[in-house]
Amino acid sequence: MPYNERAVPPLYDLQMLGTAVFAATGVLAVNRRGLDVFGGLMLGTVTSLGGGTVRDLIIRAPVFWLVDTNYLLVAIVAALVAFFASRWIHSTYALLLYLDALGAALFGIQATEKVLGLQHGAAIAVSMGVLTSIGGGLLRDVLAGRPTLLMSREIYATPILLGCVLYVVLRRAALDRAAIGLLAVAVIFCIRAAAIRWHVEMPGWLTSRHDPD
Amino acid sequence: MPYNERAVPPLYDLQMLGTAVFAATGVLAVNRRGLDVFGGLMLGTVTSLGGGTVRDLIIRAPVFWLVDTNYLLVAIVAALVAFFASRWIHSTYALLLYLDALGAALFGIQATEKVLGLQHGAAIAVSMGVLTSIGGGLLRDVLAGRPTLLMSREIYATPILLGCVLYVVLRRAALDRAAIGLLAVAVIFCIRAAAIRWHVEMPGWLTSRHDPD
Amino acid sequence: MPYNERAVPPLYDLQMLGTAVFAATGVLAVNRRGLDVFGGLMLGTVTSLGGGTVRDLIIRAPVFWLVDTNYLLVAIVAALVAFFASRWIHSTYALLLYLDALGAALFGIQATEKVLGLQHGAAIAVSMGVLTSIGGGLLRDVLAGRPTLLMSREIYATPILLGCVLYVVLRRAALDRAAIGLLAVAVIFCIRAAAIRWHVEMPGWLTSRHDPD
Repeated sequence: MPYNERAVPPLYDLQMLGTAVFAATGVLAVNRRGLDVFGGLMLGTVTSLGGGTVRDLIIRAPVFWLVDTNYLLVAIVAALVAFFASRWIHSTYALLLYLDALGAALFGIQATEKVLGLQHGAAIAVSMGVLTSIGGGLLRDVLAGRPTLLMSREIYATPILLGCVLYVVLRRAALDRAAIGLLAVAVIFCIRAAAIRWHVEMPGWLTSRHDPD
Repeated sequence: MPYNERAVPPLYDLQMLGTAVFAATGVLAVNRRGLDVFGGLMLGTVTSLGGGTVRDLIIRAPVFWLVDTNYLLVAIVAALVAFFASRWIHSTYALLLYLDALGAALFGIQATEKVLGLQHGAAIAVSMGVLTSIGGGLLRDVLAGRPTLLMSREIYATPILLGCVLYVVLRRAALDRAAIGLLAVAVIFCIRAAAIRWHVEMPGWLTSRHDPD
Repeated sequence: MPYNERAVPPLYDLQMLGTAVFAATGVLAVNRRGLDVFGGLMLGTVTSLGGGTVRDLIIRAPVFWLVDTNYLLVAIVAALVAFFASRWIHSTYALLLYLDALGAALFGIQATEKVLGLQHGAAIAVSMGVLTSIGGGLLRDVLAGRPTLLMSREIYATPILLGCVLYVVLRRAALDRAAIGLLAVAVIFCIRAAAIRWHVEMPGWLTSRHDPD
């Protein structure tokens, strides 16, 4: 049976939630730089849909938001709401950080499953899981002229990488997919949430020395 | 009948003019930063062909300048001419701004029609129209390390968005396509030209407050 | 016969060497900015595989590292080795510059041949040769927030452009492909090596005046 996330309502609803959250956090991350509503709309939408778009181009699948326009519409509405509401919702930014962690976990595991389902190997599935998770944020930061997360020591992508590897390994053991999907999402979310909560950074031996010329 | 812009000579000529203008303005926008002829050639070509390339990748159409190499050749020649001529043509930069506005309008409406012709919905057609118009300039600015237009309050993309929406709405009313295409291009051009002429910026209520940390 | 580089063992081994070298120099170019192992891994892999990926997307070929996962694995291992070994290998950076020049030459000529083999014209083949050679480095610099080579006067891309043009011209003369491939690679490498060795920059008449506003 071909991959079809619409056949699984709770997963589909979670995807839509992740899409909305990514669009909202995408806007909030850049909104204090004095951009206009069009810029906010574009950057929010790119954050939300960019990672999955690059993934679909690379694996030669139809781009998901052309197949199901709901993704595009949810991203647009969420970006617009976040743009105008951001005048009042500073205090909820912390909440959005945690929701973003959940969205990143969902996007990563769902992409890993999608790519495995298309008969690609484990290394490609994990790469695409990570790319789907972080690609939209990378595009947003590049377009906004911000340093990307690749240049920071924040623990963001590493738990996604671990979770996708975990998912691939457990799936080989022919365990129940829904259960291991849930487990992998939970692992990613918990590590990331701990990093947010206690401001954990990558340890020194996994970091190159900063050496300004 | 499949979409075939070569069948419509005046449109085709306008497309080539737009391609040349985008390549030339692309070079002129970055040329004062001391780059060499190869950098100028690359940035001019990317400005001119980049937006349509990303559009074709996303909608899974053959990339237009591989199908018709004239686009590539026109962009290369225009970029080279602009690079070497720029030592003398400072005074014509204002003219190029208006030509750029015309090119952006043409690219946007032509892309909207192309995507509608491939049976995609209105939201996708408008998105692709805007992306085709501004995508090349975004790529250029990212490659040149300049702030992209998404981070400015200049009125550039908003008229394109309005014009593409207008085109989609009027086309549903089954009006003559050439007439509504012309109208939409004129609307985009006039708003953009007014913004250039009178230095109009986005109004405050459509702009987030600039708030440097 | 369709294009199949695996059928030619020495070429294939050289491609793998080029892939490893690009991943390693990609990491070393950014490693002194204090990034973590995940950032290094991503930037090295993008440097190595990014140019060919964009080429394959544009010409609508299957992305090469999905067809042959060895490219991905070699890039990952080389990036990790370079990340951890860089604490000791400062003195070999000059060697890597020359290896990078060799990799760039190999990538460019191989891509030109691949695109010609798919029945595209000379202008497209040369464009794709250059893009394959420099695309990964451009992506890395954009993601790392560094100025791209397009904004510098370093002689990097111009010899690749010349070598690809030379290859296309000589191939039309129906000369032996292996011989002209070797010749074109040698021409690119020698010009680039001379530019590294004697710090040659583009001459003034091929450079726009730097004119800070």
